[in-house]
Amino acid sequence: METTMKHIPFYNTKLEGSFWGEKQRVSREVTIDAVYDRFEETKRFAALRCDLAEQERDSWSSHIFWDSDTAKWIEGAAFALEHKRDGRLEAKVDALIADMCRNQLDNGYYNSYYNIYDTHNRFKLRGEHELYCLGHIIEAAVAYYHATGKDQLLNFVERYTELVIKVFMEEGSAGFVTPGHEEIELALVKLYHTTGKEKYLKLSKFFIDNRGCNDRDLAKFYPWATPYYAQDHLPVREQTTAEGHSVRAMYLYMAMADLAREFNDESLFNACHTLFKNVTEKRMYITGGVGSSRLGEAFTVDYDMQNEKAYTETCATLALALWCRRMSQLKALGAYGDVAEQAMYNGSLSGVSIDGDSFFYENPLAVDLKNHGKNRATTDSESYPLSQRLQVFGCSCCPPNIMRFVNSIADFLYTEDNGTLYVHHYMNGTTSYEGKSIRQSTSYPVDGKVSLEATGYNKIALRVPAWCESFEASADYEMKDGYAYFSGVSKLTVDFHTEPRFVVSAPGIHENAGKTALMYGPIVYCIEGVDHEDDIFSYSVDVSAEVRTSFDSYFGLPTFTAEGYIKSANGALYSNVKDMRYEKKPLHFIPYYAMENRGETDMTVWLPMK
Amino acid sequence: METTMKHIPFYNTKLEGSFWGEKQRVSREVTIDAVYDRFEETKRFAALRCDLAEQERDSWSSHIFWDSDTAKWIEGAAFALEHKRDGRLEAKVDALIADMCRNQLDNGYYNSYYNIYDTHNRFKLRGEHELYCLGHIIEAAVAYYHATGKDQLLNFVERYTELVIKVFMEEGSAGFVTPGHEEIELALVKLYHTTGKEKYLKLSKFFIDNRGCNDRDLAKFYPWATPYYAQDHLPVREQTTAEGHSVRAMYLYMAMADLAREFNDESLFNACHTLFKNVTEKRMYITGGVGSSRLGEAFTVDYDMQNEKAYTETCATLALALWCRRMSQLKALGAYGDVAEQAMYNGSLSGVSIDGDSFFYENPLAVDLKNHGKNRATTDSESYPLSQRLQVFGCSCCPPNIMRFVNSIADFLYTEDNGTLYVHHYMNGTTSYEGKSIRQSTSYPVDGKVSLEATGYNKIALRVPAWCESFEASADYEMKDGYAYFSGVSKLTVDFHTEPRFVVSAPGIHENAGKTALMYGPIVYCIEGVDHEDDIFSYSVDVSAEVRTSFDSYFGLPTFTAEGYIKSANGALYSNVKDMRYEKKPLHFIPYYAMENRGETDMTVWLPMK
Repeated sequence: METTMKHIPFYNTKLEGSFWGEKQRVSREVTIDAVYDRFEETKRFAALRCDLAEQERDSWSSHIFWDSDTAKWIEGAAFALEHKRDGRLEAKVDALIADMCRNQLDNGYYNSYYNIYDTHNRFKLRGEHELYCLGHIIEAAVAYYHATGKDQLLNFVERYTELVIKVFMEEGSAGFVTPGHEEIELALVKLYHTTGKEKYLKLSKFFIDNRGCNDRDLAKFYPWATPYYAQDHLPVREQTTAEGHSVRAMYLYMAMADLAREFNDESLFNACHTLFKNVTEKRMYITGGVGSSRLGEAFTVDYDMQNEKAYTETCATLALALWCRRMSQLKALGAYGDVAEQAMYNGSLSGVSIDGDSFFYENPLAVDLKNHGKNRATTDSESYPLSQRLQVFGCSCCPPNIMRFVNSIADFLYTEDNGTLYVHHYMNGTTSYEGKSIRQSTSYPVDGKVSLEATGYNKIALRVPAWCESFEASADYEMKDGYAYFSGVSKLTVDFHTEPRFVVSAPGIHENAGKTALMYGPIVYCIEGVDHEDDIFSYSVDVSAEVRTSFDSYFGLPTFTAEGYIKSANGALYSNVKDMRYEKKPLHFIPYYAMENRGETDMTVWLPMK
Repeated sequence: METTMKHIPFYNTKLEGSFWGEKQRVSREVTIDAVYDRFEETKRFAALRCDLAEQERDSWSSHIFWDSDTAKWIEGAAFALEHKRDGRLEAKVDALIADMCRNQLDNGYYNSYYNIYDTHNRFKLRGEHELYCLGHIIEAAVAYYHATGKDQLLNFVERYTELVIKVFMEEGSAGFVTPGHEEIELALVKLYHTTGKEKYLKLSKFFIDNRGCNDRDLAKFYPWATPYYAQDHLPVREQTTAEGHSVRAMYLYMAMADLAREFNDESLFNACHTLFKNVTEKRMYITGGVGSSRLGEAFTVDYDMQNEKAYTETCATLALALWCRRMSQLKALGAYGDVAEQAMYNGSLSGVSIDGDSFFYENPLAVDLKNHGKNRATTDSESYPLSQRLQVFGCSCCPPNIMRFVNSIADFLYTEDNGTLYVHHYMNGTTSYEGKSIRQSTSYPVDGKVSLEATGYNKIALRVPAWCESFEASADYEMKDGYAYFSGVSKLTVDFHTEPRFVVSAPGIHENAGKTALMYGPIVYCIEGVDHEDDIFSYSVDVSAEVRTSFDSYFGLPTFTAEGYIKSANGALYSNVKDMRYEKKPLHFIPYYAMENRGETDMTVWLPMK
């Protein structure tokens, strides 16, 4: 298990234009302020004042998970500050941190809800997100300290974490053993790296080792949850299937991968890899979305891929990518990067609008507007994912999450191992790391051409995407586990041949039987009502006909026109096959991540094959 | 509008063997006793004693709708007695009737719930089914009186109906104007025909004319209902779309058709025909099932045909057939008979098991067992229709309904109009009616050959089923509105050529895009897991290849083998179309109505076209 692979963190890289550079520009110029303003309007920041009198006077109350929203926003802002210091932005962050520090209790405790409400229940109820919030504050503290050198929040989380060590590890005096929502485990690994203090790593390991061994008293958790919900069904090393709340699961697996590396823990790595195979071979949408069911926001069974009601929370999908990134730091296996790519370009990015100020929590693979509010007979209604992004949600975890994800996307790019540079992903930018420099020139994924210049390495390993059927390279290479290894070169050009291709899903995915989706490189495409005169659900596509390519600057990617057919309506509900007539009509495909950006409209990824 | 068409009631016909003769035999020999025993076990009959002390002692209480279950059982039993008197069965019926009569209040009121509970709420709450129950008791009384000449229950309902006339029409002293669940309106027409008393017809018209004009105070109804739920959204003559609770809707439309005939009311007929077109061109499953949503057991929007979650209650589908039968009595339009046939052979008959003792309330068009109970993370669960028939339900309206439907199926056969015999459906049997005799010899729908001998008519009109593309007849005919008119013949043979055929649904039915179903004559087919080694949802069917025919006595109908293909699984969730391999495997089709008779198994009507 022992790995000498080192991660090259995102702040060593400056992305320039191209796909992700543009996404970061929008995030910095629009998203950061937009999320800030919505959080301010919804009292998330006022809550940091922990002023009960104020809340009673104005008739609102802080929420048990609001601190995590604030913390993720701070972390995302910190990531943007790595790009460029910004006094105005730092002033906002500093003010938030000042409020938090002012309200930290003498024993180190802090939670903007439990500081003023239900104080007797601190650390008593497993479902109440205190450690989840602390985890996010830790991540924010580490990020802001790195970006600015300011250590107030870092000191704050160290004091708070001391209390957690005392209550959970030393005294065992809390109402539960492991957090009801994982997050702190991975955050503690970051805190360990920043401070060098092993006690944080040990606390993380304590939580991971104890999960699935205790906490079966669901009365202290959610009455409707089963042990699967928060991955308590088995000790983590014995878990073989992705279960329960998908964000919780992903955050757990991230920490498991982190600890596998820190402790050279083969059993943790093996559990991670087994779970990775279950997720990616049985329980993942083509968009990289995970967690198909609204009920419990959860994984269900193999091949359950309802499209219109796909839950696939933005947070879960981007966390799948982050888990895969950690797996790539454990083993250079192309599949990890392939899945990371699938999740980052599709079901993660669909969580934010192209103009950067509105968000999806759920990311369905079909929107059939006729089904929304279809039942006029009762005031009860079936639940469908929203078909238009909102600026803020009641549970608004996704907006700051996609913000911090985009601003640290270069984290995915590189690792190095004993003189070998691993290039896991393709983005246009320059990197300086420990005296070495890397320059990638590419418009990936617009096309698959990549020029690379890297000094200080004796080998360069490029992940050859699984979707790529052939590629050309300027030098000789050896293939292993999805990577092409080039020896003794510092300059390289490769061309991963990228053509639109129709894909089908495994026979077990009943919902997609007889259907196909269009992909281009890692990008999943969809069709939208706004681009078609006819009902998009009445189209079939001829997968053998030519697909024409255009480039659309709005989407920043190629768009495609394929040969479609629509059944002619003859007025009858049911007709003989042999009497049906089909009319040829072009089908216009746009990137899935850009769905529902041009008004509320029907959308589908999968459509019948003619 | 004026029609001189006369219905030839079922009790003039004796069905002999063949498809429906066999169904009636099973119903008489098994279903009648099975439903009786289950109703006895579940206290439905004990409730008729209206003994509060007994109920308190034994800790159960009667239900507001139980009288309708009992009444439908009596009516079904009465229909069987038309076939053959049976002292044992009559003794059971007589005992039930004696209990009801003994507990009728002095003012005529009777309800086994409101006789002893909440007595101050009699006729006060629109949702409480008192008039619905009375309607069914009226139908039972009329049927039992006709079958046996015994008039106790007829006297009972006349006394009760007098009270209803007083309270609803004369005093207006009830808590509402029209019933919350239609049924009494159509029953009153039967009571009028049996007694000749016009006041019953007037009460029916009062309820029909007032529906949609009052009763907007939903606080007196169900808090979750909208005016659409019980067809209160518009006066009935202005209704153009089938809305709300589908059984309520069908029972309303039946009464509207009855009154259109009784009053030569063109506006009612036109409303019925408009609603018929909406139902059959936009809102009906291929099985004749109606009411797609579990929420409110309701119609939703055009083309909403979810298959796996199809609600399509047995009661609604058989009532669609009964409504169509009434429409055929108003106008000789083949479409009415076509739809009646579609509903009776598929989504109605699927409501009872082949051995006659268990029942479906919902009749889905697909059963995908992997989805049932799929979410292990929470104790909440998604609702799916049952995948195995039960012997009795909490709300057990369907079992006695399909029982009375099957035992009066010959009601569908004939009408006559000024010397013309209309043959709307094809069943093997003999009929004597007002000195005329009719003999049909056929094994329809096993094949389409029908021999007919009818004395006393100068014209015979045969409905030519819409599914029939060509037929041969032994004499010349003229076609009009779906009927072949034969003049001056008393003996005829026709052969409606019947071949298996693949059908597709209208483009608006998104769920079936790219999919096909197999039909044979009026019979819809399905495939079941029990007949296939592979996951049935991984099959496509080649609609251009030959379909082989067998006959299976278990189903009483032909079964078919078509050429199927399954995608070879390669372990990947998503693969390029061009890399997929398909393996040819036979697909075995059985009649839909016989689904889920051989253990719990996957099932689907629609499958992708290869």
